[in-house]
Amino acid sequence: MQFQVTDELIKEVKDLIKIEDETQLNTVLHEIHFADVAEIISELNLSQATYLIKLLDSEKTSEALMELEEDFRERILENLSVKEIAEELEEMDTDDAADVVAELPEERAEKVIAEIEDERRAEDIKELLSYAEDTAGGLMAKELVKVKETWTVAGCVREMRRQAEKVTRVHSIYVVDKEGKLKGRLSLKDLLTASAKTHISEVYIPKVDSVTVDTEGEEVARVMQKYDLEAIPVVDHDEVLVGRVTIDDMVDFIKDEAEKDYQLAAGISQDVEADDSVWELTRARLPWLILGLFGGLGSVFIMENFEVALTKYRELFFFTPLIAAMAGNVGVQSSAIIVQGLANDNVKGSLFSRLVKEIGLSLISGVTLGILVILFGFFDGMDLLFSFTIAISMLCVIIVAALVGTFVPIILDKRGIDPAIATGPFITTSNDIFGIFLFFYIAKLILGF
Amino acid sequence: MQFQVTDELIKEVKDLIKIEDETQLNTVLHEIHFADVAEIISELNLSQATYLIKLLDSEKTSEALMELEEDFRERILENLSVKEIAEELEEMDTDDAADVVAELPEERAEKVIAEIEDERRAEDIKELLSYAEDTAGGLMAKELVKVKETWTVAGCVREMRRQAEKVTRVHSIYVVDKEGKLKGRLSLKDLLTASAKTHISEVYIPKVDSVTVDTEGEEVARVMQKYDLEAIPVVDHDEVLVGRVTIDDMVDFIKDEAEKDYQLAAGISQDVEADDSVWELTRARLPWLILGLFGGLGSVFIMENFEVALTKYRELFFFTPLIAAMAGNVGVQSSAIIVQGLANDNVKGSLFSRLVKEIGLSLISGVTLGILVILFGFFDGMDLLFSFTIAISMLCVIIVAALVGTFVPIILDKRGIDPAIATGPFITTSNDIFGIFLFFYIAKLILGF
Repeated sequence: MQFQVTDELIKEVKDLIKIEDETQLNTVLHEIHFADVAEIISELNLSQATYLIKLLDSEKTSEALMELEEDFRERILENLSVKEIAEELEEMDTDDAADVVAELPEERAEKVIAEIEDERRAEDIKELLSYAEDTAGGLMAKELVKVKETWTVAGCVREMRRQAEKVTRVHSIYVVDKEGKLKGRLSLKDLLTASAKTHISEVYIPKVDSVTVDTEGEEVARVMQKYDLEAIPVVDHDEVLVGRVTIDDMVDFIKDEAEKDYQLAAGISQDVEADDSVWELTRARLPWLILGLFGGLGSVFIMENFEVALTKYRELFFFTPLIAAMAGNVGVQSSAIIVQGLANDNVKGSLFSRLVKEIGLSLISGVTLGILVILFGFFDGMDLLFSFTIAISMLCVIIVAALVGTFVPIILDKRGIDPAIATGPFITTSNDIFGIFLFFYIAKLILGF
Repeated sequence: MQFQVTDELIKEVKDLIKIEDETQLNTVLHEIHFADVAEIISELNLSQATYLIKLLDSEKTSEALMELEEDFRERILENLSVKEIAEELEEMDTDDAADVVAELPEERAEKVIAEIEDERRAEDIKELLSYAEDTAGGLMAKELVKVKETWTVAGCVREMRRQAEKVTRVHSIYVVDKEGKLKGRLSLKDLLTASAKTHISEVYIPKVDSVTVDTEGEEVARVMQKYDLEAIPVVDHDEVLVGRVTIDDMVDFIKDEAEKDYQLAAGISQDVEADDSVWELTRARLPWLILGLFGGLGSVFIMENFEVALTKYRELFFFTPLIAAMAGNVGVQSSAIIVQGLANDNVKGSLFSRLVKEIGLSLISGVTLGILVILFGFFDGMDLLFSFTIAISMLCVIIVAALVGTFVPIILDKRGIDPAIATGPFITTSNDIFGIFLFFYIAKLILGF
C-alpha cells in the first residue's frame, strides 16, 4: 500500500532536471507527498536540489524543506534569494518558519522577515525567535483555534471556519477570556451536540493542562506523555494564550533525547550521524577516546607498582583485560538501568535499599562468574589458591563496579547534572582503573607478594 | 501550573484507605487526572491499590490501570473478580482492553470476555487478540469515525455525533464504500465549510495512507513519523477498514524501541527496569557478563602464548587493559553510529566509501592517541622503540576495531538480523580478543621476541 521512492524515480527526476523539463517535473512530482519529495531531494546534489526547490510550488517545497537534513537545507537556502525564502516561510507553520529563520545569518534573517508580506506572520515569527530554543516558547507554533467564552456555539463555528483556514490540523479549541487569558478548552463532541445558541461559557471544559513559555522541552514532553496529550497550550506569565505545542514536534524531541543518551553511552559527545564528515565524527569521538587512553595509562602505572608480583604470579597480569572488561561491563549495565530509571522517573525507594539490592545482584553474578573462573583454572592447570584469588578479587571488583555504576548517576542527578554522561566511557574508564587496582590489592592480601 | 502528586497527598490517601473512608477518598480523588491517580496507586501496596481500584469509578480506574507498570497491574487484576475486570474493560479503548486481556491467564481471559455486556465490544476485543503483538493489527484500536461515500454532509454530521460518543478523540473521519473498503478521508475543515446537501463523494480526499493488519509496528512508526500522521487507518487484506493506530500509542512504541537499543548497547538483554527483582535483573545481565568472561579468558590464552615476551618486554603486559579499552571504545562508537544510521535509514553510499571513511577516521584518532602514548613513554622513561611499538600496534588495533564495529552491524542488517545486538558487549568482547592478539603480534614483528 505504501508509496516507495525508487531508484528509477530518482533517476527520472535527475534526467528531467538535466534537460530542464519543467512541465514534466511538475507532473511527475505533483502527486507525490512532500515527505517523499524530501527523500528525492536528499538524493540530489546541491544545484539539482536548488533547481527543484525554485521550480516547485512553495506549498510543497516548504514542507519538504523541513524534512531535509539541517546542513543540506542551509546550503540550499544560501542559493535562494531573500524573496524566495520569504515565500517558503509564508507557507510554513510559524514554528517551522522560526526554525528556518534561526538557521540564517543574522543580517539575512532580518531581510527575509522584512520580505514577508503577511505582517502578522512576520510578528509571530519574531516573537517565536525571542524564546530559548528548547523551551515551550521555542517549540510552540502560533497556529491554533481559539474562541471567546462569551460567544455562542453558532458564532464559534463561524469563527472556527475562518481560523481553520490557517491551521492545518485542529487539535483542540481553546477558550479564552476577553484579555486573552486561557480559560479552558472545548471538545469537538460538545460543539457538535450543543445547540447553536448556547454560550461557550456553558459548555467548555474549564480544566486544561498548559505550560508556560519558559517550560523546558523535556518537561513539556513529560507532561504530554503522562497525560496522553496531542497538543498542549502555551501561556505567557500573565496566563495569556500565546501558542501550542503538538505531539508530532515532541516525537522528534523524544527521539532526539533517547538518541542523545544512546550516543553518550556509546562515547560520542555530539549529535553526529553516520554521514557526517570525518572531521565532525572525529571531534565527537576523540575526546572520549583520550579519556579512555588516560584510564589505560593509569592502569599501566598501577601495574608498574605491582611489578614485584611478576616473578611469582605472572599469570595475574594475563587476567587484567578480563578484570577491566568485567568492571566496565558491570558498571555500564548498572548505570544504564539507573539512568533510564531516572529518565522515566521510576527509581523508587531509599538509597539504602538500592545499595542492598545492587550488592545482592553483584553477589549472584560475581559468584557465578567466579565458579566459571575456577573451572577454567582447573582445566588450564592453574593452582587452586591462584584460581580462588582471581575469583575472589573479581567478585570484589564486580561489587564495587556495580556500586559506582549505580551511585554516580544518582549523585549527578541529585546535583542537577544529566546522569547520562556517567554511562559509557566515563564509567568504563574509572571502573577500569579502580578494578585493576582492587584486583592487585586483594591478590596481594591473599597471595602475599 | 502543573499539578504535582505530593507526599502529603499520598499519605492522606493511605490514611483514608486505612480507615476505609470511601466518601472522603472519592472526594479527594474525584478532581485528579487518571495519570496522577495512577502515580498515587503505584505508591501503594497491593491490598491498598486493589481497594482503591474497586472503590473508584471504573471510568477513572480503567485509564489509571493502563498507566501502571505491567507487573503491578497483573497482580491487581488477580485480586479482582471476573466481573470487575469486565467492567474495567467496558470503559477502556479496545486496544487497551485487548492488551489487558492478553495479560490474563487463558481460562480467566475467556471468562472475562464472556462477562462483557456489550457484545460488539467483546467481538472487537477477540478480533484484536487474533493479531500478532507488534503488528498494526495488534497495536490498533477499533474506535474510529467512518462515513459512507454515498452520504450527504448533513447525514454525515448526524452519524458522526452518534459515533463520536464512543470515540474519545476524533483524529480523522474515514470514508468507506458500501463494502467497507477504505476510500479516503474527510477533513474537518471541508466538513465545516461544505453545504449540508453535498455528497461526501464530492468532498472527500481520495488519497490516504494506510497500513495492513500485519504491517510490523516498526514500519507503522516509520510511516507515521515520515508523513507526520497523528492516526493511520488499518485495513485487512481486502482493503476493508478495520481499525486505526494513533500516534500516542506509537510514542510509547518509539520510546521502547530506543530504550531497547540503549539497553542492548549497555549489555542488558531483556526489557528490565531499575525496580525489577534481583532475579529478573540477574537474568537480563548475567548472559552478557558470561560472554565478557569468555572474552577475558580468551585474552588469558593469548597472553599465555606470548609469555616469552615477559622476560624482555614485561611492560607490554601492562598495556593490555589500555589496548582492550581502546578496541572496545572505538568499536562501540563505530557500531553505535552505524546502528543509529541504519535505524534512521540514513546510511548512504557504497560499502567501499564507508571503508575508506572509517580508515580515515581511525587514522586521525589513532595517530593522535599514538602521539600521546609516545609522550607518556617519554615522561615515564620508556625506551623510544618500545613506545613507538605500543603506538603503532594501538593504531592497527583501532583501525581493525573501527572496521569490525562498522561492518558487523551492516552485515547483520543485510541478513535481516537486528544490528543493535552487535553493539555493546558483543563488539567489546570480540574487539578485546582481536585487539590483544593483534597488539602482541605486531609488537612481536617490530621488537622480534
